[in-house]
Parts: sequence; structure tokens; C-alpha cells
Amino acid sequence: MEMSCRNTSSDEAGRPTHPGTFPTSQSGNSGLVPAKGDVDFPVCVVLPAGGSGERTGLQTPKQFCLLLSRPLISYTIQTFERVSWIQSIVVVVAKENMDLMVDIIQRFHHTKVQVVPGGSTRHRSIRNGVLALGEQEEGSTAGRPKVVIIHDSVRPFVEEDFLYKITMAAREHGAAGAIRPLVSTVIATTSEGYLDHSLERAKYRASEMPQGFTYDVIHRAYQRCTEADFDFGTECLHLALQYCATKAKLIEGPPTLWKVTYKRDLAAAESIIKDTVSQWVCMITGGCGHARMLADALRKDFGSSEMELDVIPDLTGDNVRYLSKGWNFIHFSIHGSDLAEVEAMLEALEAADQTLLYPVVVIWVHLSTDGGASEPAAIVELASAAKRLNILLYAIHLQQSKDAKRWERSVSKVAEIISTLIRERSPSLAGQLLQA
Amino acid sequence: MEMSCRNTSSDEAGRPTHPGTFPTSQSGNSGLVPAKGDVDFPVCVVLPAGGSGERTGLQTPKQFCLLLSRPLISYTIQTFERVSWIQSIVVVVAKENMDLMVDIIQRFHHTKVQVVPGGSTRHRSIRNGVLALGEQEEGSTAGRPKVVIIHDSVRPFVEEDFLYKITMAAREHGAAGAIRPLVSTVIATTSEGYLDHSLERAKYRASEMPQGFTYDVIHRAYQRCTEADFDFGTECLHLALQYCATKAKLIEGPPTLWKVTYKRDLAAAESIIKDTVSQWVCMITGGCGHARMLADALRKDFGSSEMELDVIPDLTGDNVRYLSKGWNFIHFSIHGSDLAEVEAMLEALEAADQTLLYPVVVIWVHLSTDGGASEPAAIVELASAAKRLNILLYAIHLQQSKDAKRWERSVSKVAEIISTLIRERSPSLAGQLLQA
Repeated sequence: MEMSCRNTSSDEAGRPTHPGTFPTSQSGNSGLVPAKGDVDFPVCVVLPAGGSGERTGLQTPKQFCLLLSRPLISYTIQTFERVSWIQSIVVVVAKENMDLMVDIIQRFHHTKVQVVPGGSTRHRSIRNGVLALGEQEEGSTAGRPKVVIIHDSVRPFVEEDFLYKITMAAREHGAAGAIRPLVSTVIATTSEGYLDHSLERAKYRASEMPQGFTYDVIHRAYQRCTEADFDFGTECLHLALQYCATKAKLIEGPPTLWKVTYKRDLAAAESIIKDTVSQWVCMITGGCGHARMLADALRKDFGSSEMELDVIPDLTGDNVRYLSKGWNFIHFSIHGSDLAEVEAMLEALEAADQTLLYPVVVIWVHLSTDGGASEPAAIVELASAAKRLNILLYAIHLQQSKDAKRWERSVSKVAEIISTLIRERSPSLAGQLLQA
Repeated sequence: MEMSCRNTSSDEAGRPTHPGTFPTSQSGNSGLVPAKGDVDFPVCVVLPAGGSGERTGLQTPKQFCLLLSRPLISYTIQTFERVSWIQSIVVVVAKENMDLMVDIIQRFHHTKVQVVPGGSTRHRSIRNGVLALGEQEEGSTAGRPKVVIIHDSVRPFVEEDFLYKITMAAREHGAAGAIRPLVSTVIATTSEGYLDHSLERAKYRASEMPQGFTYDVIHRAYQRCTEADFDFGTECLHLALQYCATKAKLIEGPPTLWKVTYKRDLAAAESIIKDTVSQWVCMITGGCGHARMLADALRKDFGSSEMELDVIPDLTGDNVRYLSKGWNFIHFSIHGSDLAEVEAMLEALEAADQTLLYPVVVIWVHLSTDGGASEPAAIVELASAAKRLNILLYAIHLQQSKDAKRWERSVSKVAEIISTLIRERSPSLAGQLLQA
């Protein structure tokens, strides 16, 4: 029964071309990322985040739910912040969540972000965001952006190249929006709840986010639209059409633009984030020859996922670059004193200041020849200090054996445990000393 | 910063009212489950499962992807099998997957299932399934079902009460289908890729599965429809309308009817299954008073999830019922000899024959007063035997302490580890002896 679910190159989630980039680049959407100079006009973002989360069935609105200990909205903000040609991001939140939002911005060191209070409906909230962008220079248009991107706070996986396409199309056509093929057939119902007719799928699309507008178009649309539009409307592209006669250019986006709507979508989003932060694994061998066998076993285990392994002797010289790119680490050692090396590594990671946004996994593999214990109390203590830096430290005790079969089994067991620890990154198992 | 994502009663995934029921019952859809006698006519199911899985980006078609070591399609089959008034299920698969499908049916002891080869399109596959239902008695209509339910193999979470509604509506109206509100605005595009107009969301619905038809309607629709319908059509309700003048009754279904489409949906589905199989936890105290403190810590830890704890002294008398209902177990003990009790419990679980469809978690918590080790080699051996029965055995060593603060910390650490082990149920960590 062959049922393994290996990824192919057409995986929807794509993969980053370089560790530390996030979210993942989209295959099927791999237009060249533009040089920074290409966007030579001001672009700002409005991020309505006033949703109450009714559909998730959770007490916390979904934009504030934690994924790997960080609120979903922080991932979305990060997505825009890393784009050099985006000047500022206006996050619009319900009044009761203003403090929480400011807290998140401070805690995760977001820059470029301004928080403004929302209105009673989605359109009123977006209007507040647009107005905030125009208010920067009273009576002057100097500070106004040329293009405003409107996005959802609960669509964290939008790529720079797609934002570029939307931005350029918005400048050219006045308005632009992401679309996706319909997943289900759309049907019209009679007032009694019977099928009236089904729509021909090929002629229709789902309207998604992001959307882009010239400041003038979106500002004018909100000036001219009615209270009924503010009360019941949801589609900004429609307002641009109706009140500014601007026909939006529609651009097909990747499936990862989907909106986190239900509780299950939080699990799906976390899984995508885990896939991404687990991809890059660096093994430090300390020059030990036994590490090569483990590397081979790991590569075999990683084969069914998107994880990749680099093997280096130590973190000196050129290899210090591994500390600053979102890698996970396996520290292989044979001497009892080597926990000091792990400690030094944690300090180096702290100095590199790369663990604020994503937890880093460090696994100490201790090869023992004499069956001796591996300082469990010291590991617990070190793991506890590491956790405060958002580093998850685990230890594995690998017993050397002269029996070739047994040794092979142990090595492949270590590989299996390592894959699980990196992928699951459970905080509650940090500090454990596992056996192989 | 209060951002925990606690469930409220309106959680989309609902919760089973009894351990062992699966999938979860739907809140907001809590019509009484009918007495078995209510459906006094034959009902069969056609399950097209010919999809190639293009959209997941995986090499394996998604219906065969493993969730907790079992293919997705087996969950869907199980959903129908547990409904007493459903007589048989015809699974339609691509010719190249016939052997795999037969293998799955044997391995997971599915009954009621017939496998037939698919056609070149979805409609041709469904027709093959419908024809297979009619073929049971050549020249006679005696063996034919009154109502045929058509469902997707990649929508595993459909509930008996919803199937009942669809079935009864299909008998009354000739056809019935599940609908859901539109998640995105649907827009019509011009041939040049601009917005033409957006549809008024309230008037349209997404057509989902399951759908139900009287045998006569679906059979006639497929007899009369054209090759173009077979080639390009996707909507069975449309064929019933066009070729039998049957207006389908539309019934709003719960969000869990969603179709597993992308790789992220597999993570979402696994998360729902994990939530469900983790809900029921039974702690066996062996009469030890210290277990009460652990129970309190566990209840506190479970507070933020849907997990619930029953505490019993042992598995004798009435308590043997716990063995046959999909519970997870915590075996608390203070004597070194108690691994024998765990062994006896594994044997009892094997005898109860409840571990075929879902892995059961058993956690042995060993309270030690003298700091002595807890037979790690014996645990590894026992866990390895348990794994073959689909039981995941983990061990936790809890060091007793006279220092009240320290003891409290250890107990809450054990609770945290238990929650993680039950929820994650990682096979590669089975047999580990963890420390608290």
C-alpha cells in the first residue's frame, strides 16, 4: 500500500528559495520579484482587523489567535513590513482591541504600523484606514500614497511579487483585485429553498484579497457611496465601479491567499508556518565521523517532507551565517563537556537576534560509548533559559553499539525523533532527554 | 495580552456526545438523530474517489493520503458505515487504484463496500456507481435503492442527522443537496479580465455534498444527458433539473462539510480528527492519593481545549466499559512492578478490539520517591509491542518532592506533557520515558 504524501514541485505552499524568507514563495506565480527601484511612488496598506471571529467558534477573534505563540495578525503585518517599497501599514481594529494591538506591535517589534479605531461595519473600518492615510499632511496631498493596498488581517501568506502585480495594475487601471477559481458550483435558490439554476463556473470567479486602488479612486468611492453601501456592502471593487466608473483589473492569485475563516483554518495556517520554519536544518558535527551516518539517515527521513540538511563541522568562520537565517540546529557531540558548546551556541543565537518571530529548535545529540547519563538536570536548566529566548532545546541520548544492526536502528530512530521534534516544536517537551 | 483561543459552544467542529462516536456532532445542526425505524426504504451511497489530487500538489491523490496512519477515504467510508439505515456504499476509483482501494477495505475491516472502476470524468464515474447499484438483480427492480446519496470521498465529516435530512428530502422532492453560504463575493469577469459585475451574495449559495436523489431521477438523468454533460458538467442537481424537471430541495449544511482540496486541508482534517480522538481521557489511579493532584492539574490544562477527564481507581467491574469506547489512558503508579499492570491493560485493549481505526494513547506515570529509574528498556520493548496494536505508549517519570512548590511545578509539568502527548500522538516518541 503506497500512500505516502510526498510533495511534488507543484505544491500549493511552494518553498522559500532561502531560509529566513517568509512566507513561502508561490510556485505557479513565480514572476520575478521586482527590483526595489521599480515602485517609484508611495504605496500604503490598510489592514481591516475588526472581525469578531464568529465563524471560528472561538472566544478570541481569529486575527489574535496564536500560531507558534504569535498572533496571526503579526504574521500578516510582517508580510508587508518586509516589502521595502511599502511605506506604511494602517491596522484598523475594534476600539476594545486597540490596546491589545499596540501591545502586539511593541512585543514583536513591528515598525511602519499605525493603529486606528474601526467603524461599525467593514466598509466604515476601511474608510477610517484610508482617511488616516490622507491625514498625514493637512490640506496638502504631499503625504498621500499613490496606491492603497487593502488586505485582510487573516490572510497571512501573501507574496511580494503578487503585491507588486496588484500595485502596478492599480496604478494603471485605478483598481485591481485578486481572484481565484470557484471551488464549488454557485447556485441561485428560489425563495422557497429550491434550486433555481446553477452558474456556469467558467464565467465567474471568487473575489479575494489583496486589492489595490489609487488613493483618489478609493477615497472618492467612500466619499460618494451611500449609508446602505456602508451598512451592507462588502466589495470595494464594486464601489470603485459604481462611484468612480473604474473597472478593476482582476489578477489570479495563488491558493495560499485563502482567508482564515474557521477553526480548522488556524490548524492549516499553523501547519504551513511549521512547514516553512522546519525546512532548514543545520547539523554541527564537531568533526565526529559518526555524524555522517546520522546525516544520511536524516536525509532519508527528510525525503518525504520539504526539509533540507546542511552539515558543517562548527559555527566558526563563514559558518556564522547559519546563526542569522532561521535555521534549526542539531548539535552532535561525543564528549560529556559538550553541553558548554550548546550553551555557547544559544548565546550566539541570542546575539544574532533571530528568534523573536519564530521559535528555533536546537537538538543536542549526545553519543555515548559507556552508557553514561547525559546530565538531564543541566539540560532542563539550559532548556528553560533557552525558552525565554524562543529557542526550544531538546536532547537525545544515542547509545553507541558495536552491533551493526542495532547501531543502524538507533541512528534511524534518532533521525525519526529529530524530524518529529523539529516539525512539531512542542514547547512542553523542551528540556527532555530522549533515548535512541 | 489575553489571546488564548478557547472554544465556545458554537465551535464549528462541535463535539461528540459520547466517546467513540465519530465524526463529531454538529452544533447548529442538532436536529434529533432519527430512530433507525424512520428510514424504512433502501438507501445506498455512491462515493466518487477518482480524483488525481492535482490541487494538493501531492503525488498521492488526497483521498489516499494518511491521517493518523489511515487513508482519508477510510474515514469517509466509516462515516456511512456507522449509519444503520444505509445499506451499501459503492466506491468508484480510477482503474489504477482498484487494488489499493481493495487493500484499504480489507485492512480497515470495512463492510458494506463495493468497488467499481471509474470513468474518464466525474459524471461518468458517478454513473458507473449508480449503474452498479441497479445491477444487483438483473431485469428486476427489487434490489434497487429508493434513494441514492452521492458524496465526495474527501469530505469525511458528514453527520448522520444531516444524511437523514438529505435522504428524506430526496425521497420527497426527487433531489436534495447541501448548500453553504458563499465565503467570498462572486464576480463576473469581462473577456479582457476586468470586473464586469459582482453578484449579490444573499441570492446565491455554494453547492456542496452530500446530495440525494431517488434512484429513478438520477438514473434517468444519466440516461438522458449528453456527451457534453458527461465531458464538462460537474453538478448532478443541474442534470436532475434539466433532464427530469426535478427541482432539488436545498438544505444548509455545517461548515465541516468542506472538501479537502489543498494540502493545507489535510492538516485541517487531521487537526479535527486529533481533537476528536483526544477528547476522552481516563486516569487510573490505582488508589494512589497523589493522583488527585495530577487530576486537578490536568483539568486545569484541559480547560483551554475540549478534553475531558474521568478518574477511576482501576479497570475492574463496571469500569471495563472504558476499554471499548475510544478513551485515552493515564496509568498512575507508585510501585516499580506496575509496568505489569500496564501490560495487562494493553492486553485488555487488544481484546476489546477498539484500536483498529484510531490510535489509542496510554501514558504510564510513574511516581518515584527514591529517584530510581523506571525501567526504560522494558518501556521501549512494551511500547514497540503496543505500536503493532495501534496503541501509543509513553512513560513519564514523576519525582516526588517534599518541597511543596517544587512538587506543584512537577505535577503541572506532567499535566502539560500529558496534554501534548495525547494531542500530538507522535508515533516516533512512543516508548520514551519523559521527566517531570
